[in-house]
Amino acid sequence: MLHGMPKDAESESPEPLFLNDFRVGQTFHSGEYLMDESRIKAFAAEFDPQPFHLDESAAQASLFRGLAASGWHTAAVTMRLLVTSGLPFANGLIGLGGEIAWPNPTRPGDTLTVDSEILEIRPSKSKPKQGIVIVRSTTRNQKRETVYVFTANILAFRRD
Amino acid sequence: MLHGMPKDAESESPEPLFLNDFRVGQTFHSGEYLMDESRIKAFAAEFDPQPFHLDESAAQASLFRGLAASGWHTAAVTMRLLVTSGLPFANGLIGLGGEIAWPNPTRPGDTLTVDSEILEIRPSKSKPKQGIVIVRSTTRNQKRETVYVFTANILAFRRD
Repeated sequence: MLHGMPKDAESESPEPLFLNDFRVGQTFHSGEYLMDESRIKAFAAEFDPQPFHLDESAAQASLFRGLAASGWHTAAVTMRLLVTSGLPFANGLIGLGGEIAWPNPTRPGDTLTVDSEILEIRPSKSKPKQGIVIVRSTTRNQKRETVYVFTANILAFRRD
Repeated sequence: MLHGMPKDAESESPEPLFLNDFRVGQTFHSGEYLMDESRIKAFAAEFDPQPFHLDESAAQASLFRGLAASGWHTAAVTMRLLVTSGLPFANGLIGLGGEIAWPNPTRPGDTLTVDSEILEIRPSKSKPKQGIVIVRSTTRNQKRETVYVFTANILAFRRD
């Protein structure tokens, strides 16, 4: 599909986009990623070693009422989906920061997809060749429940 | 050290803290974590497969001017430091979301530490046994450069 159309435009195209190609309201959709239970536990053991991410019975007794992936695992998988299919920035995805939220847990066996929308485009005043694109990426499971929202400030460059 | 002292109080104590134990201005300090080059590349291959996180010469030619860890790797390592030593919440660290920023890249060989400060405490109006603690965690390398800032909304529970 064509990119550069306002509001309800969609693009699943792998064509890399420059600063001038983005439009507010433009949307993008990633491929899928299956959350495997053994990877959930391995990620948690390395980076978020808490019982509700590591052990089924401890997780049942916790607030999560069952094994839940570390929120950082969901965040990292979202990044993979954005890099490999979800958000074709020409110079790669270089995030400066943003806001994150985890409204629901990610569970073993969940299939995640990411929908992104361009919220704002801010050309740099001091560096004419670059700008910031503000993108809201919403990660959902197969039931279309939102498990993660990342509103990111991403660096974009003008086409030479 | 005692916890619960305002402003310049410090705690490296592993003693788990409940909602009523936190005070605005209270600070916490984590242990250290060495960023290994092979783990930087493995993390990036799995979650953020971009040339500047994977390949030295591609990274030299990029905005980063040298190999840089994925920002999500820095975020995940920060979580590990908070869980294992940096932020002793009694019921574990359950984040609802927050703000993140990566002001500088993390490099192979960097040693990271995290300093946290309690910014705000919001008892829940509807659930008398719980509340939200807003914590700013600043991750620095061995040169004391800030590589990551996470201002988190973390769930806390009253002592029974």
